[in-house]
Order: sequence, then C-alpha cells, then structure tokens
Amino acid sequence: MINKKLPHVVVIGAGFGGIELCKQLQDTAVRISLIDKHNYHLFQPLLYQVASAALSPAEIAYPIRTIFRDQSNVQVYLEEATKIDLLNKRVIMTDEECSYDYLVIAAGARHSYFGNDEWQQWAPGLKSIDDATEIRKKVLIAFEEAEYEADEVARKAKLTFVIVGGGPTGVELAGALMEIAAKTIPDDFRNVDTSTARVILVHSGARILPSFAESLSQSALDALQQMGVEVLLNSKVTKVDAEGVMVGEQRVCAQNVFWAAGVQAASITKTLDVPLDKSGKIIVNPNLSLPGYPEVFAIGDIAAMVDAKSGKPVPAVAQGAAQSGRFVGQLIDKLITKGTSQDQARFSYFDKGSMATIGKAKAVAQIGKLKFTGSIAWLLWSFVHVLFLVGFRNRITVVLAWVWNYLFSSRGARLITGFVKYSVKHIP
Amino acid sequence: MINKKLPHVVVIGAGFGGIELCKQLQDTAVRISLIDKHNYHLFQPLLYQVASAALSPAEIAYPIRTIFRDQSNVQVYLEEATKIDLLNKRVIMTDEECSYDYLVIAAGARHSYFGNDEWQQWAPGLKSIDDATEIRKKVLIAFEEAEYEADEVARKAKLTFVIVGGGPTGVELAGALMEIAAKTIPDDFRNVDTSTARVILVHSGARILPSFAESLSQSALDALQQMGVEVLLNSKVTKVDAEGVMVGEQRVCAQNVFWAAGVQAASITKTLDVPLDKSGKIIVNPNLSLPGYPEVFAIGDIAAMVDAKSGKPVPAVAQGAAQSGRFVGQLIDKLITKGTSQDQARFSYFDKGSMATIGKAKAVAQIGKLKFTGSIAWLLWSFVHVLFLVGFRNRITVVLAWVWNYLFSSRGARLITGFVKYSVKHIP
Repeated sequence: MINKKLPHVVVIGAGFGGIELCKQLQDTAVRISLIDKHNYHLFQPLLYQVASAALSPAEIAYPIRTIFRDQSNVQVYLEEATKIDLLNKRVIMTDEECSYDYLVIAAGARHSYFGNDEWQQWAPGLKSIDDATEIRKKVLIAFEEAEYEADEVARKAKLTFVIVGGGPTGVELAGALMEIAAKTIPDDFRNVDTSTARVILVHSGARILPSFAESLSQSALDALQQMGVEVLLNSKVTKVDAEGVMVGEQRVCAQNVFWAAGVQAASITKTLDVPLDKSGKIIVNPNLSLPGYPEVFAIGDIAAMVDAKSGKPVPAVAQGAAQSGRFVGQLIDKLITKGTSQDQARFSYFDKGSMATIGKAKAVAQIGKLKFTGSIAWLLWSFVHVLFLVGFRNRITVVLAWVWNYLFSSRGARLITGFVKYSVKHIP
Repeated sequence: MINKKLPHVVVIGAGFGGIELCKQLQDTAVRISLIDKHNYHLFQPLLYQVASAALSPAEIAYPIRTIFRDQSNVQVYLEEATKIDLLNKRVIMTDEECSYDYLVIAAGARHSYFGNDEWQQWAPGLKSIDDATEIRKKVLIAFEEAEYEADEVARKAKLTFVIVGGGPTGVELAGALMEIAAKTIPDDFRNVDTSTARVILVHSGARILPSFAESLSQSALDALQQMGVEVLLNSKVTKVDAEGVMVGEQRVCAQNVFWAAGVQAASITKTLDVPLDKSGKIIVNPNLSLPGYPEVFAIGDIAAMVDAKSGKPVPAVAQGAAQSGRFVGQLIDKLITKGTSQDQARFSYFDKGSMATIGKAKAVAQIGKLKFTGSIAWLLWSFVHVLFLVGFRNRITVVLAWVWNYLFSSRGARLITGFVKYSVKHIP
C-alpha cells in the first residue's frame, strides 16, 4: 500500500525518460504516480520494424505495470494528462485530476507538419503502435490492390511509396519498404512484379542522416541507392493530397506517403504558461527545472535541453531521454533526502553513439570517433537494440525474427487487421 | 502466369478446408481462385491464446499468399464473397464477380445468439483476430478500471467475467482468464487483488466438453473448479445487457461477458436456394456436393456433413474441415483428369482425437479409446498444436511463449491497442 503522507512525485509519460526517472527513485521515500495513455512502454527505435511487418507489436512493447511490479512506491495510471496547473500544482487528466509535490513532464513528441496539419490524413507518421499497424496495413493493401489493378497509371501509383524526411526513421523505413517489395513478397504475387515498386525518400537537406558524420551519410546514401531507393536531396514536399505529393514543382503520384520529417513537443506544453521554443519544447533551466517552478521538471523530447558541457542542444533520442530521466531522478532524491537546493545542478549529455540500419547487413554507426558501416555496423546495431529491449523473452523472439529475416527475407507479421477500406478494380 | 483456358476452380474461404483443398490440386491442370476476406490463414484453435494475451496475432496467422507461393495454379483474392448465383455459376464479391467451373464453399461459421443478435454488443464471441484483440483489450481494461474503482459493487462487476458455453473454446478461455487474474498480474496492481476476480462458466448441458468422454468432462470440471472457476451446469443465459447476464432467474453483474455458445454457418449460405439445416449449414450429398449442383461442394463448418461410415454428423472442428477439403480436392482432381462421375463417392471422417487445455499442465485428451488428463494431456495438446501451426518460425516463438508462461506465468502480449473507451471513476 502506498503511504499517502510521503511527497508525491507525478510523472507524465512512461517513455525512456519517465521509466528511468522512476527507477532512480526506487529507494527514495516518495510515492510516485506514473501517468501514461498506453498500458505499455514502447521501444520506439524498433517501431519501424512493426510498420514493415518484421516484428509484432508485443515484441517491442512491455506492460508498464510489469516493469514496476517490484517497485512498490510506483502507482501506474492509464490516463491521458490533458492540462497542467502550475500555480495550484495540479495535473488534470481525461477523467481525473491530482495534485503533486514534484512534477516531471516526460510526454515526448509528436509529428509536425509545419503548419499543414491537413497533410496528416494522407501522410501518417510513425510514433505509436497504432501508427505502425496502420502503416503496415496501408503498405500490404497497396500490393494487394496493385495485383488486380488493370490501369497502368493507377497501378504505378499503388506501387509508389514516398517517405518524407531523411533522418533515422525515414532512412530505416525506406530501406525496409524496399526490402519487402524486392525481397520478401515478389513470389507471392502472380500478376504484378512487386520488385518494380518505387520507394522515394525526400529529404530537405544536402545529406541524409544529418546528425551523423558526413562519411556515414554518404555510406547510407550509397546503400539505399544500391537497394533501389530513390533519394531526393535538397528537396521539399510542398503539397500532400490524395494523389500523392508535390516535390518542389514536380508531381509524384503515390498511394502511400509516410511522414518522418518534423517533430514537435506533445500538445500538453501549450497548457503551460512558460516559454516554449519553436517546436513547442519547454525551455528548461540547466538543471531541467522550469523557470520559476523549481519543483517541476521536463525531460526527454518534450524539453529543449542544452548540454552543460558543450552548450549544444541535446538530441531528441532515446539516450537523451534516459539520461535526463536519470539526472532528474537523482536530483529529486537529493531534494527530498538532503533537503538542499539543487539549483546549481547542470545536466550534461554523454553521446554514446548513433546508429541507423538500412537493410540486411547494411547499417551505419558512430561511437565516439569510431565509424562503422556495412555488416559490422549492422551487427552492432542489432546487438545494441536487442540489449536495451525490455523483457528477456522479447529479446529472444526479436533475434529469432531477425535471423529468419536474414536467412529467408521473411517477415512474420504481414497481417491486415482492423477495419479495411479496400478496393479491387478489375479481376483479369 | 495463369492459363485462362484451364477449368476454373473457385474456393471461398482459406480456413483449414480451403487450404487443404487447394494443396490437393497442386498438380492438377486447373486454375484456382482462392477468395478470403483476410490476407492470412488463421490457426483458430489457438485464437483464445491471443484473446488471453499469451500469443501475438502474427504467431497464429500466416499470409495465404505465402502458403501458395510455390503453387502457381493458385490466385489469391483479398475479397469478401457476398452472393453465389448457382444457376449462372457466378460468385459475387464486394467489388467484383467471377464465373466458375467448380465451386467449393468453405466460408466457415460465425456466432449464433439464438435469435438474440442484440446480445452481441455486450457478449462478443471469438472467431477472428479482431475479435481476439478486442476481447484482450476488454479484459485488460477491466483490471485497469478495477484498480481505481472506489465503489465496491462496481469494482466487483469489473472483476467478474462470464463465459457462455462449455465447449472447448469456453473452457479454454475460462481457464486462461483465471490464470491471468490469479497468476499473471496480481503483483502488477497496488489497490486491487486481481486474484479475487470471478470467472463464471455458464453451460446449458449437464456436463462441459460434451463431445468428450464423460470421465474427461469430469476431469476438466475438477481442474477448472480447482483453479477457482465457477462452473454453472444445466444453466441457461436468458438475458445479456450492459449490466451483465441473467442466468435463469438469477442476475450476475459482470462488465465482461464472452460468447462461446452457439455457431451458425456463414451468412453467404442464405443467398443459396438450397436446403439448409437449423444452424444454416448447407445440406450436402454424401460426396459433399450440393443437391442438384454436382460442380458445387461445401466443406468444413459451413456444411452439414455426415460421416459415411457411422451415419453421424461430422463435428465442426479443424480436422473435419481439413479432411473434407482433402476429400473434395481429390474428387475434383478425378473429375477433371479422369472425367468420370464422382456421384458415388462418399466422405467418411476419421476422428484422430480431441483435446482441450484448461490451464498450466492441465488438459484433457482422447485419442481413439485412450484418455489422458493432467500434464500428459497438456504436453500432448502442446505438441499437436505446435506441429500443425503453419510456419517454422511461428512454431519456435509459440513454444518459447509457452515455456515462458509455464515458468513465470508471464503473458507477453498484454497490449491495449486501438481506440480505447475507458473510464476511471476515482483516484484514491
């Protein structure tokens, strides 16, 4: 049973930041309320593998309650926090509200369509399990429709996939879609040659994976092009509609467009009366507290965190979220157990390295000054991602799925589930 | 490429019957159109394990196209057959229609609420992947809501699960729900003791598993009761509504009611102008063709098949469907290759045995005159079900999931996905 007299720490969001934070407070005399709108913690770096039918949702998602099964000071709430009242120290949820002594905002980020929110209906992004199964469904249905499409122009549009944004998610999704079309399913179809599918990656900058070293951007570009992905650099999507996209002045007809271009902070930041940056991220003090509210912290993708050592922004990646969670967890522990001010604490980020996978035995990785490409990078990538997956069974089944995929180009989760809007034009 | 001049065999449904039938025609000079509204073949005997969060959907579903990847005379259509025009030899689908030389109706069965179709909204059944993930969601949400429900009566209703029907599906689901409540999740919750959940199995007959030997019905009953499942024999559900059910004159308040009581043939049978039995099944000739239509056959759960040897009805189980598919496949092969009438052929069913699992190391099995209970039956059950699962990777991951479940009572797929209608009444 939870002791109601202990200081109440409310944590919004059970992503990498929220989970790490709670773990740091394991032995602290607090009661923690961890609020998340899902009942599971999602291993987001592998989400594109669900979208591309390589893994099942349950293999990358783990019940939050089970993570904290043995940490009795954590209460889990399946709720969406909709508003924060900083002055009265209250969090308002869909069905409920509660007060807090300490608040940690770790609600993450969502897509940004740069002011064109109507594009979302045609160009879904990839942030949640439901996003991933929706993308999986759309991709699989496109091939089913193409199989019986009599009109050549329409068939080509069904076999054209546009991915907007050349960061890790866009690169990984483009590579995976090309592998499905060219390796996994060609023998499954009778009328259509799925290997003729076009996968087009549209990137606004001069090089994909801009957060990586230049030589690795080039390696990734070479690998994608070798697989047959068309990469359009220095190119902007100026319109998205039911027919496809406009890239600059050029029309590209595509039934499927996926969005991996921009992120903005979760919308709950708008209910705070504090300064936000242009992506809606909360501008935080060096100790990650909110200006004027020493008892409130923001961590992970929702915060505009700056590395105390380099003065540079902390990248919006899993390790940034996890490290900031650990930092604030220790800070709250000190506040409570020692009662001393932590205003002088400064969060510094340690970059353990970056990795992105492109396809079978194709990846890029940088760790400190070391750079890796090809099979070695791919093995590193596989090892690190499996290592950090929660749940031992998940790790085994994921490894198994990858080995199968490697040996047989198979993808085990090619299910079209839920409501299907599908139309076949012509049976030859 | 498909040779359009060959005889056209249209198969409606890619269940156990349809799949076996197509395989029999592998070397026959025909072109086969296999129509199914899903893109996967479902291993229905393990569906309750998806509903109870032990397995992921992809572990028991396999793409139909991949099954027939190397059988070039099969074309797969992701379509729903809505009407059959026997006189003009045409099948009408949602978006399309086609003619046939031979037709095999293998569309299976769905739930029957015995004329009370309005009960479906409160008492969903378990026939499809979407049914299973919906039941999984309802079960998981019930526990989440119970955790914060302040009203004791309401909390008890949230923790009460009623299963209607004591056949294999009902028994297996009841056992699995009790295991979740009593073994898997108790430590995940802080306020509620999930092991106090009531699982009530309502069965209209004098013994559960009526298709099994009497001694096995008794063993199953003992095992369920030992686990804590309340079994109501000779009991009829007379009403289902938002509050729960009426069992005879007795009100049982339950947030979750699941239907495993009755089946009826798929609704496409109603578009045929041929005699149906009281469950809507097609009354077939001894060679499984339709009276008056020697080129049309019905197999599996949609047909009222009679065993030629015993004169008894063939049970609506996977092996009945598979055997009838094999029989009609061979029959069509003879019709085409030999051109001789097959009117004198008679389908006979060989009962390989029956099995039902109740819980960890608890099952019943009968094979010929041999009867098994307890751990041995459970191992037999596990072995046979894994053996018949399509896809080698599926087999390994399913075995892994079961070993994990056995050792740690864990269930790996406890995800609440899709639209969630959820309400927490009170945070203590």
